[in-house]
Amino acid sequence: MKSKELSRADVVDKRMQILCAAQRCFARYGFAKTTLDDIAAGVGMKKASLYYYYKNKESIFQDVIEYESNELLNLLNEKMATCSNAIEKLLMFAHARLEYLRKTINLHELSVQVLLEVKPIIDRLFQDFQRKQLEVLQKILLEGIEQNIFKQIDVNQTASAILSVLEAVVLKEFQSAEIHSASDIDYNKLQKQLDTILTLMIDGLKK
Amino acid sequence: MKSKELSRADVVDKRMQILCAAQRCFARYGFAKTTLDDIAAGVGMKKASLYYYYKNKESIFQDVIEYESNELLNLLNEKMATCSNAIEKLLMFAHARLEYLRKTINLHELSVQVLLEVKPIIDRLFQDFQRKQLEVLQKILLEGIEQNIFKQIDVNQTASAILSVLEAVVLKEFQSAEIHSASDIDYNKLQKQLDTILTLMIDGLKK
Repeated sequence: MKSKELSRADVVDKRMQILCAAQRCFARYGFAKTTLDDIAAGVGMKKASLYYYYKNKESIFQDVIEYESNELLNLLNEKMATCSNAIEKLLMFAHARLEYLRKTINLHELSVQVLLEVKPIIDRLFQDFQRKQLEVLQKILLEGIEQNIFKQIDVNQTASAILSVLEAVVLKEFQSAEIHSASDIDYNKLQKQLDTILTLMIDGLKK
Repeated sequence: MKSKELSRADVVDKRMQILCAAQRCFARYGFAKTTLDDIAAGVGMKKASLYYYYKNKESIFQDVIEYESNELLNLLNEKMATCSNAIEKLLMFAHARLEYLRKTINLHELSVQVLLEVKPIIDRLFQDFQRKQLEVLQKILLEGIEQNIFKQIDVNQTASAILSVLEAVVLKEFQSAEIHSASDIDYNKLQKQLDTILTLMIDGLKK
């Protein structure tokens, strides 16, 4: 056995360390200004060693976004499992999304900041992430109809409308002229506003 | 009577020509890249003559935004006067806003494009414009409550939530990675999505 060869577990572990370092760098400097040296320094390795794990910055970024998306989707499923009906689930969906944004160096700040820079990568990943979120929402709406809580509605169209609102209101807050970084966001105000909107929409869904 | 002196009507007329030319320039080149020469050329005058009417680009921009805001508010009031109840008015409010965006070289594209460049001017004007729109929405909601169509709701909070949704969904569409100019917007799709959202919210408002 070659002592230099890394086990699969070591590679996975190191890749995770790289992703975390990259996540911090992208959030702090933006995509364009982050260098592979910055990321390597964050893990305490040389750039040359980094190439063992990733061929370029784009591929690291892609994994960061994918990792964050999956983390959020897992969190959503976990939280919703504790809810007893479709209305609770819808509210939980909105809350958990926002809570995730607040707690982590967040996906949306990253995506707003680098949207144009890394458009081709983002486009594909975001479509995939949106599709997965839409599936979750569609399932909740169908459940609500089956539970006889919600009216008969166009499930696809309504899920898309709800996701669009949740995304748009957060995006708007991030884009607000007063806000320069994620820490400037007044999450309580944002949560209250999303609640007002969602409560109206849920009341509109009710039989 | 000095033949060189301009009448008040002439000044107003010339200012309007300057605003229209500026509106076209800002929409085409963005705020930063538009020069006073560009604007003057659009009216067929020299830059030196332009200074008779406006002291700088910022003050022209300020008047363009104010002019467009007032035009939209007038359109809203005019259209809503033809509606028989609060629900029709709410839908009309959303439709007329979007129709205005579609028909004119629009306020929102301008504002997204130059938001950071002209932040101090925009902030003050936008707050004023938003306040006026909120007043319209609050009036509609109060009317709906008086007409016994809507539930007793927090009028201020609900008006703010509705306006936020209308603004945010349009902003999100403009910011979409696929969209490079106002002509790329699929207004029919946008209108349909806003209708789905607003219909849910209105159903939620109903008694």
